[in-house]
Order: sequence, then C-alpha cells, then structure tokens
Amino acid sequence: MAFTLEEIATRFGGDIIGDRTHRVSNLAPLDQAGPEHLAFLANPKYLSQVDTTQAGAVLINADDLAKLASPDGRNFIVTPNPYAYFARVAQAFIDLAAPKAMPGVHPGAHVDASAQVAASAVIGPNVTVEAGAVIGENVRLDANVFVGRGTRIGAGSHLYPNVTVYHGCTLGERAIVQAGAVIGSDGFGFAPDFVGEGDARTGSWVKIPQVGGVTIGPDVEIGANTTIDRGAMADTVIEQCVKIDNLVQIAHNCRIGAYTVIAGCAGIAGSTTIGKHCMIGGAVGIAGHVTLGDYVIITAKSGVSKSLLKPGLYTSAFPAVEHAEWNKSAALLRNLDKLRDRIKALEAAVAAQTGAGKA
Amino acid sequence: MAFTLEEIATRFGGDIIGDRTHRVSNLAPLDQAGPEHLAFLANPKYLSQVDTTQAGAVLINADDLAKLASPDGRNFIVTPNPYAYFARVAQAFIDLAAPKAMPGVHPGAHVDASAQVAASAVIGPNVTVEAGAVIGENVRLDANVFVGRGTRIGAGSHLYPNVTVYHGCTLGERAIVQAGAVIGSDGFGFAPDFVGEGDARTGSWVKIPQVGGVTIGPDVEIGANTTIDRGAMADTVIEQCVKIDNLVQIAHNCRIGAYTVIAGCAGIAGSTTIGKHCMIGGAVGIAGHVTLGDYVIITAKSGVSKSLLKPGLYTSAFPAVEHAEWNKSAALLRNLDKLRDRIKALEAAVAAQTGAGKA
Amino acid sequence: MAFTLEEIATRFGGDIIGDRTHRVSNLAPLDQAGPEHLAFLANPKYLSQVDTTQAGAVLINADDLAKLASPDGRNFIVTPNPYAYFARVAQAFIDLAAPKAMPGVHPGAHVDASAQVAASAVIGPNVTVEAGAVIGENVRLDANVFVGRGTRIGAGSHLYPNVTVYHGCTLGERAIVQAGAVIGSDGFGFAPDFVGEGDARTGSWVKIPQVGGVTIGPDVEIGANTTIDRGAMADTVIEQCVKIDNLVQIAHNCRIGAYTVIAGCAGIAGSTTIGKHCMIGGAVGIAGHVTLGDYVIITAKSGVSKSLLKPGLYTSAFPAVEHAEWNKSAALLRNLDKLRDRIKALEAAVAAQTGAGKA
Repeated sequence: MAFTLEEIATRFGGDIIGDRTHRVSNLAPLDQAGPEHLAFLANPKYLSQVDTTQAGAVLINADDLAKLASPDGRNFIVTPNPYAYFARVAQAFIDLAAPKAMPGVHPGAHVDASAQVAASAVIGPNVTVEAGAVIGENVRLDANVFVGRGTRIGAGSHLYPNVTVYHGCTLGERAIVQAGAVIGSDGFGFAPDFVGEGDARTGSWVKIPQVGGVTIGPDVEIGANTTIDRGAMADTVIEQCVKIDNLVQIAHNCRIGAYTVIAGCAGIAGSTTIGKHCMIGGAVGIAGHVTLGDYVIITAKSGVSKSLLKPGLYTSAFPAVEHAEWNKSAALLRNLDKLRDRIKALEAAVAAQTGAGKA
Repeated sequence: MAFTLEEIATRFGGDIIGDRTHRVSNLAPLDQAGPEHLAFLANPKYLSQVDTTQAGAVLINADDLAKLASPDGRNFIVTPNPYAYFARVAQAFIDLAAPKAMPGVHPGAHVDASAQVAASAVIGPNVTVEAGAVIGENVRLDANVFVGRGTRIGAGSHLYPNVTVYHGCTLGERAIVQAGAVIGSDGFGFAPDFVGEGDARTGSWVKIPQVGGVTIGPDVEIGANTTIDRGAMADTVIEQCVKIDNLVQIAHNCRIGAYTVIAGCAGIAGSTTIGKHCMIGGAVGIAGHVTLGDYVIITAKSGVSKSLLKPGLYTSAFPAVEHAEWNKSAALLRNLDKLRDRIKALEAAVAAQTGAGKA
Repeated sequence: MAFTLEEIATRFGGDIIGDRTHRVSNLAPLDQAGPEHLAFLANPKYLSQVDTTQAGAVLINADDLAKLASPDGRNFIVTPNPYAYFARVAQAFIDLAAPKAMPGVHPGAHVDASAQVAASAVIGPNVTVEAGAVIGENVRLDANVFVGRGTRIGAGSHLYPNVTVYHGCTLGERAIVQAGAVIGSDGFGFAPDFVGEGDARTGSWVKIPQVGGVTIGPDVEIGANTTIDRGAMADTVIEQCVKIDNLVQIAHNCRIGAYTVIAGCAGIAGSTTIGKHCMIGGAVGIAGHVTLGDYVIITAKSGVSKSLLKPGLYTSAFPAVEHAEWNKSAALLRNLDKLRDRIKALEAAVAAQTGAGKA
C-alpha cells in the first residue's frame, strides 16, 4: 500500500512541491527516512535535517520552507501544521495495516436481550453488556469490557480490554478508553454519624448513595486504569475533546472543560470545575469545590487548594536537589521565623544606632 | 412507591412535625424539591432555603428548627443528624428502584466445585471462584470478578466488575469494592543479592515470598483501581468501617484503624500503622514503618516521613501560585543559607559598631 | 515435607555448623521460631535473638556468627547473604505447598488458532490470546488476562488476573505481573491543531498514533494496576530485573535501566531514561525527556524536573508537621523576597554607618 503525494494531498490538504507522483508507503523521522517514507519538520531546530534527509517527501510549513538552503529537487507537502498532518496520515496508514475486526458479537460475550448493539459494532470475548445499554455504530468493545445497564457508548468508540463502565453513563462519539479504566464508580461520600469523643466515640460512616452518572462528550480519550466517579445527585461531566492520561482520578461532580488535557497520576477532588483549554501536569492534585478558569496551566506535581480563575501558569513544586543541600534548606525553612526575628532585632538595633548617631 | 412520613419515621426514627400522612416518593435538594420530595438541611447556612422550599417535608435538627422564622404549616422530621438520615432514606429508595439481581451462578461463571457459594449470592458472568473459597449470603460478584482459592467474602458484600481478590484473603460483611480494585497482590519485597560496585556489580534482586494475606473488617469500602497488598508473613489488616477512595496504594503489612478514611491517590508504604478515626487527604504519601495515632488528620498532598502520634492536623503541602512568583521563592529557598550568612554578618557588624559606640 | 540442613545446603549453598541431619519444615522469625523452623539474621541489631531463639537452625553470615556469645550446641547455615538465602528457601517451600495448576487451556479461554501456546503453559478461564501471540513454556495466565496479537510472553512468566498486555509487546522470561496491570496502552501524545485565541479558538487535538511497543527484559516484576505505555515510534523499554511496585505510571518511550526499583505511585513522564541500579521512591514524579544516571536514588514524594547524572541521593520533599507551624513557614516562604529586601536595607544602613564612623 503506497500512495502518491497527489493522493495524500487530495485527502489531507496541503500544497505539493516537487514530484506529485512520488509514492510513499510509511512515515519516519527525518534522520531515519528513506525514499519510501514521508517525514515531517515540526520543530525548526531540526531544520538542517531537512537538507540531508533521504525522505521521499517532507511535511513542512511555509515559514520553515523559506529558510531552507536548497529546497530544489526534493518533494514537500506544505501545510500550516506538519505535526498534526503527520498524525492524521500516520493514523490512516495504521488503519490500512491493522487487521480488520469482524463486526458482530463474540459467542463468549454476554449481551442482554434488551441492549441495542449496532450491527457494525465489534463485541469481543467475555464482554458484558447489560439491559438497556446502547452500543453505537462501529463501536469496538475489547475482551472483558463491562457496560452497565442503560449506559450509552457513542458511535466509533473503542474500549480496550478490562474497561468497566457502570450503569447510567454516556460516552460520546469516538471515545477511546484505554485498558483497565473505570467510569462511573461510586463517588466517595459518607455522612459522619458518630457520637462521643476519643475512645468513647461510637457510630459509623453512612454511605451517601451516588445516583448521578457520568456524561462524556465526543472525542474524549481516557488513559489506562484511570478512574472517573459518578456524581452524587447530578452527573460528573467531561466535555468534548478532553484528553486524560493514565492513573488519573476524577472525583464525583467534577466538570472538565472542553480541550483540557490532564497528564498521568493527577487527582481532582469532588465538585471541582476546570475550564476549557487547561493543561494539568502530571501528578498534580486539585482540591475539591474549586474552580479553574479557561487556559490555566498547572505544572507537574503542584497542588491547587483554591480557585485560580486567571489564565496562566501556576506552580507549587520544588525540583529535587542533592539530599544534603535539600536538608539544609528544609531545616532553615522550618526556622524561617527565627531568621525573621533576627532581622527584626537588627532593624531595631540599627535604628537605635542611627537615632543615637543623629542625637 | 411513595411513603408516608409516618412510615419513614417508623423505619428510620425521628419526630414528625406536621402531616404524618403526607407521602414522599423521592429526595431532592431544598431549592429543587417539590411536594413529593423529602429534602434535608445539613448546613445551617442554607437555613433560609427551608423557609422557601416547596419540599413535602424537611429533615432538620432541633437547633436549626428553633431558628426558623415560621415553621407552621410545613412538615418536618426532626433528627439529630439530617445528613446521615437522608443517606439512609436515599439508599432505601434506591434499593426499591434498582432491578433485583436473581440469586444464582451465571452459566458463564467458573466456580470450583469445592467453593461454598450461598444460595442467595449473585455470581455474574465470567466470574472465577477458586477452590475452597467461601461466598456469603447475599453477596454480589459482578462480571469478571476473580476470587482466589480459600478467600472468604462476607455476607452482603458487593464486588463490582473486574475486581481481583487473591487467594487467602478475608473480606468482612457488607464490603463494597469498586471496579478494578486489587486485594492481596504480592507485597513489594526483594532481598538485594549483589556483589561488586558500579559497572562491576553483579547479582540480582531475590523476591521475598509474600505468604501473609489481607484481612478486612466489616463495612469497609474500597475504591476503584485501589490496590491492597498481602502481607509478607502476617496479614495486611483493614479494620472495620474504613473507607478508601480510588487509586490508593496500601502496601504489605499495613494496619489501617477502624473508621479511618483515605482519599484518592494516597499511598501508604509497608508496615505502617494508622490509628482509628484518622483522615488521610488525597495524594498523601506515608512512609513505611511509621505509626499514626488515632484522630490524626493529614492534609492533601502532604508527605509523612515519621510517626505522628498526637491527634491533630498535619501538613507539608504548598498551594500553587503564579509560576513567576513561585520561582522567586523557590530560588530564595535554595539560597536560604546565604540569607542566613548575611544576617550573621550584619549581626557581627552591628555588634562591633555597638561595641565601638560604647567604647 | 521436611528437609535436612544437608539437603538445603546442597541446593542453596552455605556451610553447615551443627547437626547436618536436623530437619526443618518451614521458616519463621527468630523470636517465633521452634525446632522445626529455619530462621535468619539479616540485621545485626537482632543478634541477641540468635542467642535465645528456639529455631532449628539459623541462617547467618560469618561476621555476625563471630560476634555470638555462645554458638555451641546450635545449628547454623553460614552464608554471605542470609536474607536472600531465606527468600530462596521460602520460595522453594511455597512452591512445594502450592496446588499445582494443570497445564493446558481452560475451556472458558479464547485462544486464537494462530497463537503458539507451549504445552506446559496454564491458561485460565476467560483468558484471551489473540492471533500470532506466543506463550512460552510454563507460563501461567490467570483468569481474564488479555494478550494482544503478536505479543510474546517469556517462559516461566506469571500474569495474575485481569492483566492486559496489548498487541506487539514482549515480556522476557520469568516476568511476574500483578493483577490489573496494563502493558502497552497508547502513549499520551496529541498534536495541537488550533487556530485563534481565547473564546475564538477552534480546532482540536489530533492523536499521534502510538506504533511502538513495549519490550521488557527477563526477571521483571510489575505491580498491581501499574501502567506502562507503548512507544510512539520506538519501544518503551524495561531492562532486566527491574522491579516496579503498584500504581506506577511509565509513559511512552521511557527506558528503565536494569536492576532499578520503582516504588508505588511513582510516575515517569515520556521519553525519560533511568539508569541501572536506581531506586525511585514512592510517589516520586519524574519529568519527561530527562536522564537519570546509574545509582541515582530519589527519596519518596520528590519531583525531578531535570537530568541527574551523578550517582547519589536526591530530594525535594518536606515532611508533614503540625498545620499551624507549617502555615507559618509557608507564609514566610511566600514573602522571602521581602525578608531579603530587609536584609539588603540593613546592609546599606550598616555600611552607611560604618562609612560615617570611618569618615
């Protein structure tokens, strides 16, 4: 399966420079590509590689093309965003190469008679689809996926093995859910019902029933072993085109705004709202009941304890340094009030001297 | 299914004020409730909503009732803890509304002939129950749950899909285990068996067999994708009514005291003991071989490296601020010893001047 | 099943002192052992327990043996590393005691006709093995394990229930993968394809296809619910004898050097390289595209944002202290620039006075 640059540009756009009939059959980095490869320049610091690459054609933007020493005799597809263009072409090559799963329900799956499964859907072995669930066109449910009663999976979605989606949830079109993710587990809510103090305390925690669901917009990706809890009364909401990495926890009643990306190991406590186009770094923790505005960026490992409404970059993480050096700073930090008191005393002494000098 | 206030108070307690024959069929927040709803006042700051609510009846405590402008003509159930009361009533309504699972073993489940499964238990599709396991009355094992050999699941427990409980573990009565949780995985223990240093080092890590189990008391809830390791020689122990959120790691040989709650993404290293009635915030990390006393509260994102025996609130987390501001503080923190040295120099200079002045 | 010290030393090495025909049938700690037990001294601080133990024999190194008050009349196996020796003997006892799984494919498993499964392998219920996968000798795949197309599982490996290994991955010999772990999920990569700013922004994130795999060397252990993403173009690589705890995230294109151990809840961002013999503490976060040299140790909860090439111990975590005390330090930290300005002002004042004094 090889394609001419003409065929590629017809499908994905861009202006061809060079031989429109040149055929490529795969993609490769600039420094590893041969005549059968399409390469791309996403970062201008690799511009010199464009001059030396053996690639059959290079995806490039007009600005970078203008900087080239000698573009003559080579092939380009000029596009404003070569990286996104590369991603789209790569996906198309992969789709062509991947084995086609046969539509239908595997005989080892358990699909309730009242569930609606589109004829084009691929339902793998040991999948469970409960009563009233709706599985859209071209959905793929891999082995051991569980879809609870009344849950709806939008057309074109792919749930990888061992994913659990509880009852009463909705996934939009083209959802990608990596293996082991859990959607719709009970939010963490308990009413304290204790009397007495200390050793005399009796009573228990009473579970607050979690009767909301999870509503997920179109084009959302959810990482492996990530967990998204159902709402207590209303739904937890993930808006369109949100991208969530692995091992992320999203608690009940959160709302994550469209196009926001959340890196691995982040945790977002209950009833927090995150705006659109935010970037939440890895292992960030965000407290419950706070609001992040649109375009807020939180750097990796930071903690957010109150609302941050203004767009911009926020941080509370220290980078690791040699242990002995760190311990010295940490000890001084714990005694910062003593340093401040010494400054105060100095200020008083200097003021007294100055006064004395004046007098 | 609607119930009179009389019927509700007979089952759940409390004193009725108003029309004992009024019927409610569901619950709702004060500001959204109609005559068919039971609402509740848990936080006095919403007291004014009680005056304007359309709810058929309001759960309230005696103190708040006394503060109402005009309670006449409306219905109340007076109870010391309206929030816990609400939770119990809500659960009862949900239990009535939920489809009843039929007791029995799904034909797609694999139950060893030597396992004991109560007749009232509901065993879902693709469930595996190994030899000698004991599944109590009214237990519900959802799709793809794995119960290892000799493991005991207490009466009334509910294990959601894709939960794994290894061999030789015990879950108490009424356990709730959310999807994807793992109980009884091997603790992380390896003996170093290396000789030589640097590039000349040879040898390997030798796995320490983990032959303890996990013992979990009654009324424990365990969150989605949470992991609890089995003990090395003795058991890892989770006492009664402990509530654990999603993506929490509890290492081998820990003991978590009764009624303690642990929020999402927390990690507790091996052989650590946590007291009763503690509250461990989200993403907290607790080192191994330390002890937390009863009633210890650790705020979110803090790290605990040594024992904290006294009840109270402990912290080591900074909240995120604007990146530029943070960097300024972080740079100064790294040079705190230089600030201290400048203070020292000033103190010497001022002392010299004072001495000179005196002289 | 009891063994003479002779039999044990023949298999595992070491020099016997005392009665070579004494039989032991199990292992126990020094202070709990009886004549039927083998005990061990790994930490010299328990040396006095060796004098009082009832153990049938004690594993000890030559240095500690020399310190004993009265070794006479008791049995020892002298070995340089009693802890590793204990681990190996314990494993042998466990292997003898554990029920033997019958080789073969469970009738409730789904193995593609083109997959190669060794005759000695044990394939549990609801396991899925896709086309072209290769399952080595003595491999054990527990219930609900998924092995994707073309993936190879090395001889002697054990995958616990609900583990997912995507297509195109390779696990070396003797891998141990705890329940719920995910290997080969898509790396988190998206090309931004947006135009406009603020509310006028349009476009989307374009998924970068992840066409690399995961390559895992021999003797690797992977913890419960840990996730290891496949590479974008090349493979994510885990070298031999790496040990990874629970709930760890390893992003695409990372390379983890041989013998490195990674504790629970750690997260390692994409394209990061970690050297050999490193120790990564619990809940450590490591940024993407950085390099850690060999023998680097990162203490628990620290964050690494740049390369650390020199062997040694690195830290950026604070231990929790009482909340009020912490808040005081945190407030001063935020105003450290003001303290510095006050020091500057003092320095100027003192200099002026000194100058005045001189003048």
